[in-house]
Amino acid sequence: MLSVVAHAARDLRVEDMDAPPAPGPGEVAVDMRVGGICGSDLHYFNHGGVGANRLKEPMVLGHEAAGVIAAVGPGVAGLDVGQTVAVDPSMPCRVCAQCRRGRANLCTDMRFNGSAMRFPHVQGLFRGKVVVPAERAVPVACGPDLAALCEPFAVCLHAAKRAGPLLGARVLVAGSGPIGCLTVLAARLAGASEVVVTDVADAPLRVASSLGADRAINVAGPGGLDGAGGFDVGFECSGNAGALLGAIGALGPGGRLVLVGLGGEVPLPIAAVVPREVEIVGSFRFDDEFALAARLISSGRVDPSPLITHALPLTDALDAFVLAADRGQAMKVQLDLST
Amino acid sequence: MLSVVAHAARDLRVEDMDAPPAPGPGEVAVDMRVGGICGSDLHYFNHGGVGANRLKEPMVLGHEAAGVIAAVGPGVAGLDVGQTVAVDPSMPCRVCAQCRRGRANLCTDMRFNGSAMRFPHVQGLFRGKVVVPAERAVPVACGPDLAALCEPFAVCLHAAKRAGPLLGARVLVAGSGPIGCLTVLAARLAGASEVVVTDVADAPLRVASSLGADRAINVAGPGGLDGAGGFDVGFECSGNAGALLGAIGALGPGGRLVLVGLGGEVPLPIAAVVPREVEIVGSFRFDDEFALAARLISSGRVDPSPLITHALPLTDALDAFVLAADRGQAMKVQLDLST
Amino acid sequence: MLSVVAHAARDLRVEDMDAPPAPGPGEVAVDMRVGGICGSDLHYFNHGGVGANRLKEPMVLGHEAAGVIAAVGPGVAGLDVGQTVAVDPSMPCRVCAQCRRGRANLCTDMRFNGSAMRFPHVQGLFRGKVVVPAERAVPVACGPDLAALCEPFAVCLHAAKRAGPLLGARVLVAGSGPIGCLTVLAARLAGASEVVVTDVADAPLRVASSLGADRAINVAGPGGLDGAGGFDVGFECSGNAGALLGAIGALGPGGRLVLVGLGGEVPLPIAAVVPREVEIVGSFRFDDEFALAARLISSGRVDPSPLITHALPLTDALDAFVLAADRGQAMKVQLDLST
Amino acid sequence: MLSVVAHAARDLRVEDMDAPPAPGPGEVAVDMRVGGICGSDLHYFNHGGVGANRLKEPMVLGHEAAGVIAAVGPGVAGLDVGQTVAVDPSMPCRVCAQCRRGRANLCTDMRFNGSAMRFPHVQGLFRGKVVVPAERAVPVACGPDLAALCEPFAVCLHAAKRAGPLLGARVLVAGSGPIGCLTVLAARLAGASEVVVTDVADAPLRVASSLGADRAINVAGPGGLDGAGGFDVGFECSGNAGALLGAIGALGPGGRLVLVGLGGEVPLPIAAVVPREVEIVGSFRFDDEFALAARLISSGRVDPSPLITHALPLTDALDAFVLAADRGQAMKVQLDLST
Repeated sequence: MLSVVAHAARDLRVEDMDAPPAPGPGEVAVDMRVGGICGSDLHYFNHGGVGANRLKEPMVLGHEAAGVIAAVGPGVAGLDVGQTVAVDPSMPCRVCAQCRRGRANLCTDMRFNGSAMRFPHVQGLFRGKVVVPAERAVPVACGPDLAALCEPFAVCLHAAKRAGPLLGARVLVAGSGPIGCLTVLAARLAGASEVVVTDVADAPLRVASSLGADRAINVAGPGGLDGAGGFDVGFECSGNAGALLGAIGALGPGGRLVLVGLGGEVPLPIAAVVPREVEIVGSFRFDDEFALAARLISSGRVDPSPLITHALPLTDALDAFVLAADRGQAMKVQLDLST
Repeated sequence: MLSVVAHAARDLRVEDMDAPPAPGPGEVAVDMRVGGICGSDLHYFNHGGVGANRLKEPMVLGHEAAGVIAAVGPGVAGLDVGQTVAVDPSMPCRVCAQCRRGRANLCTDMRFNGSAMRFPHVQGLFRGKVVVPAERAVPVACGPDLAALCEPFAVCLHAAKRAGPLLGARVLVAGSGPIGCLTVLAARLAGASEVVVTDVADAPLRVASSLGADRAINVAGPGGLDGAGGFDVGFECSGNAGALLGAIGALGPGGRLVLVGLGGEVPLPIAAVVPREVEIVGSFRFDDEFALAARLISSGRVDPSPLITHALPLTDALDAFVLAADRGQAMKVQLDLST
Repeated sequence: MLSVVAHAARDLRVEDMDAPPAPGPGEVAVDMRVGGICGSDLHYFNHGGVGANRLKEPMVLGHEAAGVIAAVGPGVAGLDVGQTVAVDPSMPCRVCAQCRRGRANLCTDMRFNGSAMRFPHVQGLFRGKVVVPAERAVPVACGPDLAALCEPFAVCLHAAKRAGPLLGARVLVAGSGPIGCLTVLAARLAGASEVVVTDVADAPLRVASSLGADRAINVAGPGGLDGAGGFDVGFECSGNAGALLGAIGALGPGGRLVLVGLGGEVPLPIAAVVPREVEIVGSFRFDDEFALAARLISSGRVDPSPLITHALPLTDALDAFVLAADRGQAMKVQLDLST
Repeated sequence: MLSVVAHAARDLRVEDMDAPPAPGPGEVAVDMRVGGICGSDLHYFNHGGVGANRLKEPMVLGHEAAGVIAAVGPGVAGLDVGQTVAVDPSMPCRVCAQCRRGRANLCTDMRFNGSAMRFPHVQGLFRGKVVVPAERAVPVACGPDLAALCEPFAVCLHAAKRAGPLLGARVLVAGSGPIGCLTVLAARLAGASEVVVTDVADAPLRVASSLGADRAINVAGPGGLDGAGGFDVGFECSGNAGALLGAIGALGPGGRLVLVGLGGEVPLPIAAVVPREVEIVGSFRFDDEFALAARLISSGRVDPSPLITHALPLTDALDAFVLAADRGQAMKVQLDLST
């Protein structure tokens, strides 16, 4: 079967690899159908790593993926061959202190598909077939393309929970890439009374508007935030230092900024935080929000489909990665893994 | 009567000023006895301002002060001549959105004794007598020296509340000046199971230990934090960028850093915040914690007296300010306002 | 002008009363247009009181009402003659301890239109014209009939906030009267992933379904809750003891039941609360949720219009009250106050 | 070795039983030294069950116990022969939804020493020796008598956490049996500014006072709560309906009552809950508070020793149980399990 393997920065290869063995007890085999390219996949592709996590051996990329149950191992209930599933890439240990206190996304012994955080790396999901424990194959009632959005939407639902209650809140989302757009959807769903989104390009702002933003502001222009301010909650989804500082300034007293995007160093003025009791909190991956994302997308309560702008065959992975990095052209680029 | 007036940077004068008129309805007159010199008083003295708040006219300094009721206006119940009181310097408007939602310390129309935040400045408490609404004269059952610590202790109790529940928490306090020391006291009171305090000087660390810190670390030495880490909560009380970054690094996953100290710009790495879901929250002044501070000090449940290292007559204010700025020699320097 | 006055149980009169004087500084006059009959109005009508609050003098009823600005007093900005407004019936003191800590709905010196909680009673809004402080006339961009739903919707938004974060929650609403129906709307808005509503009559359940309930169960039937259970949050909106106990039983471990409906005594088994750490919390009236309700209804984000089943002229108030008490026929009955 | 076995109501036997085998990998053997008799032990003794959990086979009682490491199995680090340990009786499954969300005390597949909640029953700790996984043997730096208080103190620390932040809170503890007394200790530790305790007997109230209660009220007298009221937080530790209702009435607006004691049915007036937004929340057992209790008792930060009124040899278990049930004479009665 084919797989998409990162060997080093700018060295991405489509390679043949052995198919996995038959599923064991409690496991299922999934014929993979769709895999979405995420910003961290692009980092491995472009830079050979994400932050401190560097490629030390070839690694199959991919952690936003869905497929169809191909075989069911002994003792598995509730999953049948032919069922479309989203594959949860997250494998917390369930025994460390973080897992025990209900924050499995902070697991200190986490395994995560397509991440070089540990060595040997945990191989990713951009391949023809995987065998996983049944609980990681989450049934959906939608196509595999939407199902492959469960993972990034789970990230945004988690960020929304980190924000605290959003009912009636005025919300700023800085950055309207895929994560920004799905955060617009999550904030809307959680009852925000107003959602303003910013970016430095118009195309992603249009997608954000179609997903429910009340106002989309191109902050590259001379007007900056154009007077928007006093937000209860901000979500920083760009990883850009200027956007982060702008978001802090746009919060009202006691406002809360949730950092979702990764990035470099920010020259943070303490005086922007203390006298207004601003709160800056990190949000990382997700926990049970994956199952929630699957339920919400399956039920049609949210429709993230405008986000998917391109679908290419796995054999064109290199083109797909180049395209995904071009924010003027593409939002979510997905690979057809069934090729 | 005499008062301590800042005219500009390094231009502090002891001046005669008119005594206030007799208290009107709902007011009391307080013969001031003790005033403590705070870091912001030192900023006005040394730099002519605190951050963006610059001296635009002469201003009586002081917001940590206590005295004795000298006269009671019509309609005041529960306060008698001779009663020792701590004077609450905080005058929120009670009608703005922040006041209405229970965060009067963030009042957008705040008046605060001895602050140049608005113009005309709100004159301070380092003077012989003040007339204030009765609710701002908070009765205590201790001497005016301890009573003058109600204000800074209220700041630290508020910071402790901003930290969330502290019962059983492992706590780091960065900076062992007066605010750091009183934060040690507050964290201990709130049930922290371990309190570690840091500074770059030994003398203040000894005071912190006497106030209940389990461990005091001089981080100027080669060992830095000496392996201490995994804290649930940190309090940044130094205003120093390095201390702030060190505190973030010393938090465990999901840890919370409360910023109490004011300071300049910090080069914050986003990667130190997001993947561990660290929380950085500002804490500013206090609200009903002033009354709580008065109750706790009055009852003897906490004893902040080791913090008071010097008492000088008001007429020696200049010496007192110079002394207060010398962290090797002094912790809390108080003025005898009754001179 | 005409008004609807309760003199005693079953003694409701439409009476002429003097029009109010011209608005003073900071006030506006409102020509009242629509008033909705609430359960507490019915209690005054049927029983001469609500719980411990008994009629001690004739009282104009009504606290769900809207109209059009007729005159603007000196110093009022942002309100013009002709503007449709919802009238906020709540007048917290803004100085008591509850107001100061951001819980003005628990104000210990509350004044509230059409309530006999204090004496002299605070007269209600079922009359031709009122003069109120400008901040109590909340502009809307909808008709006065929908505007008159701001008050009960604010009650339900407040209840939703009392529930804590609802994003992804499975929610039970016990009772599908007007408050139950608007709670369905609020829970849906706050991101509940599933909303189940119960009642003992089919007609109100149909309205609840049209407002977004996923499932409506008539618990008068032999199936009871029909296996529904494991809810994260329940809202008790019926005031019925059996419904309350059923809701507790239907919560999952750690579930939270928000009591909105008033009622009598409930035989609560402690063993139903302790081993599963159930939470039972009261929710009373609203605070800044009134303005939020006005914004949400104005923007069309929520559409509570299916709730309004009848509109009668003020002169037919007696018929309207009899009709409103008939749950088989009516949901929200509104009076045309402009008659 | 000897053990204390409940066969049925009033049928308690001291029996010989086989010693456990040598500890396997990851396990330790503990020579048991001290076991405290808890209210639930007394229920098994007196009534053959606790609530719905009935004895269906003979069961060794006991879940408050401590001993000394007698042998260490392969792969155990950090525990040596001779170390005094408190034995954590709680065995959550770590995989159910409750465990995963950080509420292992609500585990839906819980195993707990000396509890008939499941069948076969999980045998208790009143015996000469046990073999347990190493993580359940929690090292202490105190004698086994104090160590045997870790379990009930953990219950009370958990209750304190369920109360939310207690810093500065005014607290009522209803019931001054062992759980009430340790709750006084926990509330004091968490920074309560005032702790009032009630009971219907004087002896336990004296113990509560010695553990830090500011005021102890015998509510059997004509004065009832004697005017005490306006509490922020109450803890119901008696299981008595009257005490529970009295505690609700003594809460201030927005007050929170934590139910710790188990009991029967309470005639709860809804009107006592809704208009003041009272919160009633269950608290059950503990999670990581066991380790916290061990740390706090070991460090001497809290001293629960006044609670221990009697120590009897295991062979006198019947006398000890009769004594423990006599609240006029005994508080905590402990068995010497080393006999």
